[in-house]
Amino acid sequence: MNDTVKEQYFELLRFESIGADPLKLRDCAECANWLKRWLEEAGFKGELLMPDIKDSKASPPILFAEKKGSEGAPTVLIYGHYDVQPPDPLSEWKTPPFVPTEIGGRVYCRGAQDDKGQFFAFLTGVTDFLASLGTDAPRPTIKVLLEGQEESGSGALIQMAESIRRKIAADVLLVSDTSAATGLRPAIVAGLRGVSSFTVRLTGPSRDLHSGHYGAVAPNPAQAIAEIVSSLHNADGSIAVDGFLSGIELPSPEELAAAEESADPEEVWSADIGCEAVGGEKGRSIVERNSFYPTIEVNGIHSGYGGAGSKTVIPSEAFAKISMRLVPGQSVTAVREAVIKHLEAHCPRGMKLSVEDYRLGAGGFRLPLSSPLFRLASDVLGEMDPRGAVYQWDGASIPVVSILKDVAGASALIVGWGQAEDKIHSPNESYSFEQFAKAREWGRRILAAL
Amino acid sequence: MNDTVKEQYFELLRFESIGADPLKLRDCAECANWLKRWLEEAGFKGELLMPDIKDSKASPPILFAEKKGSEGAPTVLIYGHYDVQPPDPLSEWKTPPFVPTEIGGRVYCRGAQDDKGQFFAFLTGVTDFLASLGTDAPRPTIKVLLEGQEESGSGALIQMAESIRRKIAADVLLVSDTSAATGLRPAIVAGLRGVSSFTVRLTGPSRDLHSGHYGAVAPNPAQAIAEIVSSLHNADGSIAVDGFLSGIELPSPEELAAAEESADPEEVWSADIGCEAVGGEKGRSIVERNSFYPTIEVNGIHSGYGGAGSKTVIPSEAFAKISMRLVPGQSVTAVREAVIKHLEAHCPRGMKLSVEDYRLGAGGFRLPLSSPLFRLASDVLGEMDPRGAVYQWDGASIPVVSILKDVAGASALIVGWGQAEDKIHSPNESYSFEQFAKAREWGRRILAAL
Repeated sequence: MNDTVKEQYFELLRFESIGADPLKLRDCAECANWLKRWLEEAGFKGELLMPDIKDSKASPPILFAEKKGSEGAPTVLIYGHYDVQPPDPLSEWKTPPFVPTEIGGRVYCRGAQDDKGQFFAFLTGVTDFLASLGTDAPRPTIKVLLEGQEESGSGALIQMAESIRRKIAADVLLVSDTSAATGLRPAIVAGLRGVSSFTVRLTGPSRDLHSGHYGAVAPNPAQAIAEIVSSLHNADGSIAVDGFLSGIELPSPEELAAAEESADPEEVWSADIGCEAVGGEKGRSIVERNSFYPTIEVNGIHSGYGGAGSKTVIPSEAFAKISMRLVPGQSVTAVREAVIKHLEAHCPRGMKLSVEDYRLGAGGFRLPLSSPLFRLASDVLGEMDPRGAVYQWDGASIPVVSILKDVAGASALIVGWGQAEDKIHSPNESYSFEQFAKAREWGRRILAAL
Repeated sequence: MNDTVKEQYFELLRFESIGADPLKLRDCAECANWLKRWLEEAGFKGELLMPDIKDSKASPPILFAEKKGSEGAPTVLIYGHYDVQPPDPLSEWKTPPFVPTEIGGRVYCRGAQDDKGQFFAFLTGVTDFLASLGTDAPRPTIKVLLEGQEESGSGALIQMAESIRRKIAADVLLVSDTSAATGLRPAIVAGLRGVSSFTVRLTGPSRDLHSGHYGAVAPNPAQAIAEIVSSLHNADGSIAVDGFLSGIELPSPEELAAAEESADPEEVWSADIGCEAVGGEKGRSIVERNSFYPTIEVNGIHSGYGGAGSKTVIPSEAFAKISMRLVPGQSVTAVREAVIKHLEAHCPRGMKLSVEDYRLGAGGFRLPLSSPLFRLASDVLGEMDPRGAVYQWDGASIPVVSILKDVAGASALIVGWGQAEDKIHSPNESYSFEQFAKAREWGRRILAAL
């Protein structure tokens, strides 16, 4: 990496662009402006889209930039996000979280990888590609969309997407926000699960009650939340919500085979998580459970006393935070309907049920393995690495990508260069110069190939 | 109430004797010393018993005082506690919590009722009785035992009880720490449930995990705690733990009839708690459920995210705080065995189970309605109030009373003058002069009658 690129990368990392923190709005705006200037120097025309959302706090700006290409050439849309996770817990950082620090071929900094490092490396590859072109050479139209709220749900961009449909229309959507396989082997993400989430709250007595005076008289919300949460799954771990699974599209034999081939064995999962890998439905493989079936996960459950010793109280309310990973064929609204119907049918006696903060998010998608775009990408990645690329169906979700590819009318190509040791979202996030170079090379090569 | 008694009552209330707070140990000791002097002025011989518990922090002293009576006369043991609940939340107090304040015939102060007001009123009745006696009149031996840890479990006194068996031996144990019936109608507590408690913890993954990457791979402790907690009850609300109910002594037809007679109707309970009174087992009356059957109550359940919005995490652990109200015939150790066996048998896949901080507490008891002591008390209370006394089997527990009556070899007589509007354990606790006068009269009359 030459000094100029490194200097620019480090400058970008120094912005404390924590998109979810209203106190960092200014840092986000400065970061977006810096990126706008950087793209303009590379020949793009940039603009900051200021989200105008009535019922929300001010949001970080969305940067859109475009460099027109040749008549008849394809249009690519490059998506990334300049916001980063909060650096907490600060005490666990070995270097200051917003001071990029080189140690042993890696750069330590919040955002070094996710996603500043990944998209910036890709964009430097794009400028490498542009610099390599002769003056009159045909070239694609390149659009860049960088948002500042991905880590907190991409609310503004998702809300704005329809209104900028023409602006972001493209043939191909390029995303650099995922991981390569073990050992930095190239990986094409061929599917992502969708995600919806909500809070279920049960209210019983109008105040906390003495568990002796009122025990077995007042219904107990702490027990009730346990019952209603338990009702979501059967004893074999399968989902017990009527209609939840209806319409799901199961993987083709080719997809399943490709996924099983690149999957880690169960022992690797167990060693990673520190307990048996026995989540989900009995009798299905880890790949099936994690890549191709939906889940309902309890992210939190809370009611009553949680301190030291004992407090003999019947709490007045209880809640659970629940998220669902969705697969192709499931409609987010049909899922919502099925889940709410189930909760209402299973509301324990004496409880008032409320389903709050239901976020539809986005559905899951799988991309056709046999598409020309995947064959092209596979060839390019094969040139970069003799091992060739693997396909991955990650159990996670990038809701904004689900939505952008549909609104932009684009085929999505999701290739990233993360590795587990990057520790994104954790203290001491880092990205290696080797990874940066791969991402940059990928940017240059795929633009040239399209 | 004459000025001297009121002055002394208010002095007693000003001690910030929060027995559970190590920073208030000195206040507790000063309070105990004040009470010792007060009793010595009334002719008692007092001593402070300093609990010597190796594995615990220093505890508030236990005050024991005795005034020898005539040869052959009975011995009574008066139990009370000078410790009070913490005053939190402070912001909800309308007057300073440790400044006794008279408003409309009531005294507002933490401890105004529970239990400083109740036992002090009773003791002034005892001194009224002593003052009324002729010099040579026969009189009972009177022992007074006032502890400073009732609100946090009476740990020191329970541990010490056996070693002071001879000191506290008595024919009758008098306790003023309960409530009268609605409208201040006298009530004799004919039974109390026992209580045991514990924390159950489930540990799964070694760290919090991303619910997308690991969903349906890693087992989820938040879901697992819901399942194991649900397993404690059947769908009809009955207890599902094998062996939990074995040996329980059901009430006699006379006890059940007396309890049903003095019970509030369901509408009163529902209005009080602000929701339907549908806790406990279907098909049993409220009196059966609350007075004569045991319960397993979830006092708290906690795991994972509880903040605003959504955090898609699989938590690494979960716990529930559970307490059980026990009835006569249940052994606290047999119950512990049954519960732990049940939890182990129902531990969800992939989870490590631990049962922590198991407190055996004490068993429940019921006193024979036909005893001479109850007939005597009933007569005395009938003289005080033309409505006569009712019998109550409160669903609550005073573990130390279960233990003291057994160790002292005494028949227990539990009569108190609390009312719901006293708001004990809540901000703005109070006690009326009318209640104080009743408690005082009761102390004088019952001592004279014994």
